[in-house]
Amino acid sequence: MRTQVAIVGGGPAGLLLGQLLHKAGIDAVIIERQTPDYVLSRIRAGVLEQVSMDLLDEAGVGVRMHQEGLRHTGFEMLYAGARHRVDLNHLTGGKSVMVYGQTELTRDLMDARTKAGLPTVYAASDVAVHDYDSKNPRVTYRKDGKTHEISCDFIAGCDGFHGVCRASIPRSAITEFEKVYPFGWLGMLSDTPPVHDELIYVNSARGFALCSQRSQTRSRYYLQVPMTDKVEAWSDAAFWQELRLRLDQQGQEQLVTGPSIEKSIAPLRSFVTEPMRFGRLFLAGDAAHIVPPTGAKGLNLAATDVKYLSTALIEYYQEKSAAGIDDYSVRCLKRVWKGERFAWWFTQLMHNFPDAGEMGVRLQEAELDYLMHSEAGAETLAENYVGLPLDFASH
Amino acid sequence: MRTQVAIVGGGPAGLLLGQLLHKAGIDAVIIERQTPDYVLSRIRAGVLEQVSMDLLDEAGVGVRMHQEGLRHTGFEMLYAGARHRVDLNHLTGGKSVMVYGQTELTRDLMDARTKAGLPTVYAASDVAVHDYDSKNPRVTYRKDGKTHEISCDFIAGCDGFHGVCRASIPRSAITEFEKVYPFGWLGMLSDTPPVHDELIYVNSARGFALCSQRSQTRSRYYLQVPMTDKVEAWSDAAFWQELRLRLDQQGQEQLVTGPSIEKSIAPLRSFVTEPMRFGRLFLAGDAAHIVPPTGAKGLNLAATDVKYLSTALIEYYQEKSAAGIDDYSVRCLKRVWKGERFAWWFTQLMHNFPDAGEMGVRLQEAELDYLMHSEAGAETLAENYVGLPLDFASH
Repeated sequence: MRTQVAIVGGGPAGLLLGQLLHKAGIDAVIIERQTPDYVLSRIRAGVLEQVSMDLLDEAGVGVRMHQEGLRHTGFEMLYAGARHRVDLNHLTGGKSVMVYGQTELTRDLMDARTKAGLPTVYAASDVAVHDYDSKNPRVTYRKDGKTHEISCDFIAGCDGFHGVCRASIPRSAITEFEKVYPFGWLGMLSDTPPVHDELIYVNSARGFALCSQRSQTRSRYYLQVPMTDKVEAWSDAAFWQELRLRLDQQGQEQLVTGPSIEKSIAPLRSFVTEPMRFGRLFLAGDAAHIVPPTGAKGLNLAATDVKYLSTALIEYYQEKSAAGIDDYSVRCLKRVWKGERFAWWFTQLMHNFPDAGEMGVRLQEAELDYLMHSEAGAETLAENYVGLPLDFASH
Repeated sequence: MRTQVAIVGGGPAGLLLGQLLHKAGIDAVIIERQTPDYVLSRIRAGVLEQVSMDLLDEAGVGVRMHQEGLRHTGFEMLYAGARHRVDLNHLTGGKSVMVYGQTELTRDLMDARTKAGLPTVYAASDVAVHDYDSKNPRVTYRKDGKTHEISCDFIAGCDGFHGVCRASIPRSAITEFEKVYPFGWLGMLSDTPPVHDELIYVNSARGFALCSQRSQTRSRYYLQVPMTDKVEAWSDAAFWQELRLRLDQQGQEQLVTGPSIEKSIAPLRSFVTEPMRFGRLFLAGDAAHIVPPTGAKGLNLAATDVKYLSTALIEYYQEKSAAGIDDYSVRCLKRVWKGERFAWWFTQLMHNFPDAGEMGVRLQEAELDYLMHSEAGAETLAENYVGLPLDFASH
């Protein structure tokens, strides 16, 4: 088989890239290790920046997001027992975010791809990338007992942190930066009305909590837990009890509990690969970088990578220019590091770090107090939360 | 001897308090362990916030500061080899700082005290504070082979981090917060013109450096060094060479070297005592809290303590109200923690932390890049640098 762009990975990054390339008349095949149902079952982020919304519209898949997504113009910060609202709209000159689950967004992208009759290979095993330092890269995989080969002009590695693309690059060609946090997030999804109509970020003496949501009838809650905790040891009742203890009185009164649909513990990691391009292989999204989930930057950074990559490829095919391709890694990394910085900062501001001691707790409180009482301080939080402008610091 | 307020410690905090009380017709005696020359020989901070300048004017000792001090409306941040100016004036709506050495300020306060004929006991040994939990506190000391006693209404502990006042308080009555940094500042004073007319804060791969000044002919430079370094091992030539390596080309070209007048290594520490009042004993300045020197908050926080304390004592004597006294600790600590937060943050932003690894270096660069390209980010740096308003976060 031959295509122009072989996309390894059929999660939101790969699907969105496929859609944008299709709109520009560029052929692409998506090769995904898992089944569609498995891809949809991954419970992930749910807060989209304006830049990501714009991109979904550009790809022609924004209709349901606008209908069913919840536009949030602010969120609550709860610390030292009191709530403070971060008015995103006011602080950023009218910007906001969209609460719309990654599962829904993935479904929209899959449906659009099916409707357009675009080729996706699911359940492909032994996926491997070859010759990406030549002009004739290839992707091979096994399916139905046979080995298949796709020859292409470019390979897009959208296959996540544990994917084959980054792992295929010689260690000498890449630099990896990593920071692991001494705790994880225990997440729970539940068909209960959210405790509040906006998100609540909680810094409590018992640890961080986040009251998020997927819709007006589906809640998503998170608790900071030690990485040694086992999800099996957390009953639904224990989860609700611990969440209650981290909330204020209003939250305790308004919390509606119910059975969980999903429960899992995820580690927190900061990770960046440099560069993000190797000849004709491009890494995008989690394949190149991971942020801790505080502030919901993961999916949004992946969306920007995809924007830069699709623009570069379109430029290459339509204008015969390699400028965008040559610039891809530098452009992405500039934004990636800003996102990494924000996610790290928001994480260290809101979580309980046992090693930081009482001094660390007080410095956190002082910083929170400063941010909530300084217009400039609140603006730094808000402008990063809604997403820095695409041309930020490019001058 | 009897007085209204016994002030332990004749550094800038004690002297300023004495002057403000004198203006209000309140008697005070200062008891200082050292000689005046020793007090003046301590080389310390040199950047005053507007709040501190106002206070010196209020105390009637601001004349020479206004004549000889250098008003700075901005400073330079040098990182990744490039300079970025922080325009304090623009970012704070017209505020600035005053570069005026602590030695000069102390001399002005000493001169004013001498001129007014106010009592100061120098070279007092074995200073001790007594009965401050009663209505009749006493201070005793030995001088000229005799023991002396001063009975008073209140004791002001302005005797620094190693002073007797905090050390006299039962351990069970206080909570101490402390953070020690894995490096020190090697400072050098030299009668050479400063390398630049404004301060330069340097984040370099070789460590932090600060190009400060006391006047247009006296430079003050600092280098981050391991705490294991000995000052004797740092020749003047070695200092200049290392400073040069941390500067940009412009700095290297404009640096004027010369013999040092003073050279010393100081540890960096974050420290806070709570509360700051014990019956009729008040702690002020370094006796209650220490900040790392990055951002020059130490003397300025001491000045605010003194402002709150003098206001409280004047209120007590003139209006027979104990409200200010009762509120002293809470008022001070609110501001102290903001200053501690800023000094800690600015320190971790600018120094080389060996344990943070390459990820730490990149996060620092990303934060610096963010701050220098975001108006809100730059504002947070600027508004803290010139000093938050006195009523900040008191609402």
